[in-house]
Amino acid sequence: MRNIRIGMIGCGVVGQGILRLLTENAPSLEGRLGGKIEVRRIAARDPSKERGPYVPMDLLTNDPLSVVNDPDVDIVVEVMGGVDPADSYVRHALQSGKSVVTANKALLAARGHELIEIAEAKGVDLYFEAAVAGGVPVIRVLREAFASDRIIAVRGIINGTSNYILSRMTESGIDFGPALKEAQEKGYAEADPALDVGGGDAAHKLNILATLAYGVRIELSQIATSGIDQVNATDIAFASRFGYVIKPLAVARALPDGKLDLRVHPALVSKKSVLASVNGALNAVYIEGAAVGSCLLSGLGAGALPTAVSVVSDIVDVGRNLRTASIGRVPHRSFRTASMTIPRVQAPADHNCRFFLRFSVQDRSGVLGKLATTLGQHQVSIEQMVQEGHQSSSPVSVVVLTHPAREGDVRNALTEIDRQDVVSAPTRLIRIEES
Amino acid sequence: MRNIRIGMIGCGVVGQGILRLLTENAPSLEGRLGGKIEVRRIAARDPSKERGPYVPMDLLTNDPLSVVNDPDVDIVVEVMGGVDPADSYVRHALQSGKSVVTANKALLAARGHELIEIAEAKGVDLYFEAAVAGGVPVIRVLREAFASDRIIAVRGIINGTSNYILSRMTESGIDFGPALKEAQEKGYAEADPALDVGGGDAAHKLNILATLAYGVRIELSQIATSGIDQVNATDIAFASRFGYVIKPLAVARALPDGKLDLRVHPALVSKKSVLASVNGALNAVYIEGAAVGSCLLSGLGAGALPTAVSVVSDIVDVGRNLRTASIGRVPHRSFRTASMTIPRVQAPADHNCRFFLRFSVQDRSGVLGKLATTLGQHQVSIEQMVQEGHQSSSPVSVVVLTHPAREGDVRNALTEIDRQDVVSAPTRLIRIEES
Repeated sequence: MRNIRIGMIGCGVVGQGILRLLTENAPSLEGRLGGKIEVRRIAARDPSKERGPYVPMDLLTNDPLSVVNDPDVDIVVEVMGGVDPADSYVRHALQSGKSVVTANKALLAARGHELIEIAEAKGVDLYFEAAVAGGVPVIRVLREAFASDRIIAVRGIINGTSNYILSRMTESGIDFGPALKEAQEKGYAEADPALDVGGGDAAHKLNILATLAYGVRIELSQIATSGIDQVNATDIAFASRFGYVIKPLAVARALPDGKLDLRVHPALVSKKSVLASVNGALNAVYIEGAAVGSCLLSGLGAGALPTAVSVVSDIVDVGRNLRTASIGRVPHRSFRTASMTIPRVQAPADHNCRFFLRFSVQDRSGVLGKLATTLGQHQVSIEQMVQEGHQSSSPVSVVVLTHPAREGDVRNALTEIDRQDVVSAPTRLIRIEES
Repeated sequence: MRNIRIGMIGCGVVGQGILRLLTENAPSLEGRLGGKIEVRRIAARDPSKERGPYVPMDLLTNDPLSVVNDPDVDIVVEVMGGVDPADSYVRHALQSGKSVVTANKALLAARGHELIEIAEAKGVDLYFEAAVAGGVPVIRVLREAFASDRIIAVRGIINGTSNYILSRMTESGIDFGPALKEAQEKGYAEADPALDVGGGDAAHKLNILATLAYGVRIELSQIATSGIDQVNATDIAFASRFGYVIKPLAVARALPDGKLDLRVHPALVSKKSVLASVNGALNAVYIEGAAVGSCLLSGLGAGALPTAVSVVSDIVDVGRNLRTASIGRVPHRSFRTASMTIPRVQAPADHNCRFFLRFSVQDRSGVLGKLATTLGQHQVSIEQMVQEGHQSSSPVSVVVLTHPAREGDVRNALTEIDRQDVVSAPTRLIRIEES
């Protein structure tokens, strides 16, 4: 029985988690795979740095190419992160006929299609379960478990940092700034949080999920992306009065007209919905299939060990392909490359949903009437309206929940409203997601 | 490119769902598989019966053996249900070198190990995602996504009928009898509900899940099984006062001493837990891995189309194995047969947990003291106690929540208590599940 020999590029916390699982679970891994998984070589920036008990120091090198070029390496495991130079090592490995397992969502979002096509041309595998939602096996489920169904929508909370921050704001009534600071202190947010709180990270992941759900090739720029950094404690408090919580959502949805609706943004979801109870650093993905109905997957979306579980299970999977000479048995993108399509993506202005609008206005008579009239002139009809208690000098919040409306119409109305002198700050718009 | 040719045994609602998916999703199935899935022959008891638009009447036969023996059939799909005669057709198919996809949990629980060993000896696949939790892909997730982890526990709501009945009792305060009747009228319970409400069906499924999680061979008799038919509206109301709901649970858990804890029973779970919000006919499985943490899968556990999704995805999976000559690449029971073990199973008396005890006693002075004394003599310590409002003549309920205690001790105490003449009915014992 042939063993599976791996080389690893990157040896940070995820890399160390992988080595820990390979050591601690060696007997059961062998019981499942029928052969051992051997680590042959590990590239790290500083090979002399102390890295804990699971890292065999004698396998360390500072030369990633020596890992890729090692003839004793069957599978290259890339956990260094970032687009460059990770791209060059992954690309070189695939081109040399080695399969790759990666956790690198930024790389996949930027160059995924290209790398996958190289893998397919070379007859090797490129697996990436860990790139989306950490330990939650959403890639496998979309690609294999629901291969028989037509996916209507994928809705998820797939950025743990944003979810942690909004959860803390909701629990404690604190504002975005202090919640971000707390997340950074606890290690849930990076020093530069822009990619997480701005929605870019979730857009990377949604791109991957939409590819698998619909067999399409999407540009990141086609995903309407906004971050949670615009949400404040007042929005959350008003949302709660109406029975909603604000969650960082990523949505890919097939519309009846054949277009795709692709969005990353904070959204109001009903307190009664399951997504409302997914708090802290948890991730959750709701997959709605035409036949299977709604299926929820939820768990830890980040962290060294949950991510390592996905990476090592991918190593087992590719290892099984190697041992049975069935590399390429599952199309990397669910659909075979010849069946991939370029989707028509709905323009953001055409998105239709209910909206939460918070106006900051002077508390003068006639203001509510003006707001309602302008909204009505733009075909935006009001479902509920509430005005904050009277305050003599400072502006007050007026919150409107609309009936379903076209986003372009709503934005046109807001442009007109925000120009008026009774309006003291740009109106806040947050979408309401029904599910 | 080779097509995948299937023959189906059974053409009830699930069979018709399978044919519907194969028709409606034919283009995307071909895009994923790289070949068509062709239906060659279908066995049904009455081939002349009208079966809706997706059933090609010219393929029907009343002879299941002719499906199994058809040289043009690559995969036999068994959806007739029941242990016999399904066993003989599945066995014959495997022995003739044909792979099988089945949704038959009763057959797998009774004869699964034997059939799987025939499949392995013959070099064919036996797939069964649909046998547990319908459209929820728990088999794939345990067998593949978490192949790298050590499973600590699997806790699930895997009998939709029981969950529907308890959910209705909780919502409306009605008792078991009327809730069962309602479930039968709505098609959620069968005319003979014993296998569902008695816990037998969940035990079948738990047997399969425990096999995959732990690589063990379990007899059904090793699963401590009790049904929801003993729960009444009073229990549910008291549980609610303490912050709990009663759910039909199935639990497989690895204990620190290496034994397995295997149980199917109604249990109190905290209203704050996610399982508490899994209502109606939904299924949910919580998988707790040493590294991955807790991962929840939830969705429709029954119904023609969700079940058909799992069956057809298995057909795609086995089809991929056939097309790449990699049959047997994933061990049917997660672990290779040579690595399977006979587990040590914890005796039910040794189970340690908190208990909900409801005593029916005469409302006389000194009764509470007697109960507490007897429990104490058996090392059962009381965490909370509440007595129903005073009622002159009829017996009253006294409810005790215990601290963690050994089940054998609790049962010995109850035997002694139930013998006393102030006790007017057998004491109700329901386990409390922490998660």
